[in-house]
Amino acid sequence: MKIVVSATSFADVVSATSVADIIELRLDLFSVFPDERKLLGIEKPTIVTIRRVQEGGMYKGDERRRIEMLSRYSAYADYVDLECDLRDEDFKAMKCKVIESYHNFKETPNYEYLRDLIEGKRGDIFKIATMGRCKEDVLTITRVLCEYDDVVAFLMGENFAWTRIFACFLGSPFIYCSISKAVAPGQLDARKVRKIFSLLR
Amino acid sequence: MKIVVSATSFADVVSATSVADIIELRLDLFSVFPDERKLLGIEKPTIVTIRRVQEGGMYKGDERRRIEMLSRYSAYADYVDLECDLRDEDFKAMKCKVIESYHNFKETPNYEYLRDLIEGKRGDIFKIATMGRCKEDVLTITRVLCEYDDVVAFLMGENFAWTRIFACFLGSPFIYCSISKAVAPGQLDARKVRKIFSLLR
Repeated sequence: MKIVVSATSFADVVSATSVADIIELRLDLFSVFPDERKLLGIEKPTIVTIRRVQEGGMYKGDERRRIEMLSRYSAYADYVDLECDLRDEDFKAMKCKVIESYHNFKETPNYEYLRDLIEGKRGDIFKIATMGRCKEDVLTITRVLCEYDDVVAFLMGENFAWTRIFACFLGSPFIYCSISKAVAPGQLDARKVRKIFSLLR
Repeated sequence: MKIVVSATSFADVVSATSVADIIELRLDLFSVFPDERKLLGIEKPTIVTIRRVQEGGMYKGDERRRIEMLSRYSAYADYVDLECDLRDEDFKAMKCKVIESYHNFKETPNYEYLRDLIEGKRGDIFKIATMGRCKEDVLTITRVLCEYDDVVAFLMGENFAWTRIFACFLGSPFIYCSISKAVAPGQLDARKVRKIFSLLR
């Protein structure tokens, strides 16, 4: 399990370096899109994400331009995050590993829906982040985590923050954490997460 | 969710008082069976347990005598722990609330087996402690916790200690913790558990 810290600026990257295993550059939240060569100066493996508004991000620009930027950054990153509705060609245009992601801020679909998404995956890792509403949702992601490897799955929402921890014990390869402020509902501070793991092992 | 600390002596009871919500007196692990009136001096609610060898305890004596002792202690305790294979008359002989318990140190039976145990319950709370072996076992207890209230369910074993925490988030009313040494595989220290909950809330 690796601690991914979501950074919204290069100041965050500096703070995250000591606590993160991997740094996710949420470039949609950066004040400007940095020159891609600036990624070479980051001392930890990186994930490049340019999240659209419909998945909870701030990118409102042209979709083709977004894919082109991701492709350009991918030559300097360890992973890029691509939403699962993108085309096969978009996946092929990337020069590093891909985290294929599914976000749902309204609800958690049933197991069969999520299973079909995972079965059709084109990325190296599949990430499922859905809004938690009830215990049944916990059962659904538990089933996903029990059936599949290389899947990050957890429930969003303050009341379900604990599912981010418990997913790691079921083999989830990454846990997404914050360093300054949470970029998703229920995201936990990376230092807290390290402390929790040290207490549980 | 209440933190239950398992005490194996009156020295443990003293240590546990500041951290526990409820103190479980594991009388099978005490050097002598105390006079029942001694329970009146304990400042926290109590559970009286005299665990048999087959459920991981140290009581090797006569079964009728054990039930008689439990019945006598029950007049001074808040809960007694009765194994789910006991007779209805044994349950009726108790003068306080009953935690009906199922232990399995070999494996975790399937969901249907556990469901049938819960459906037939005579106690106020049902407790399921089974040995964890694989992810499928996590799914089984998750299902139990999602379907039933007033059920304590977790997996034993060092690798599954985290299920004790996660059960609480799914509504498990108690978490059994240690104060000096663990009395069951994977039992967590009560102070650690308080710390973990404070970090997760």
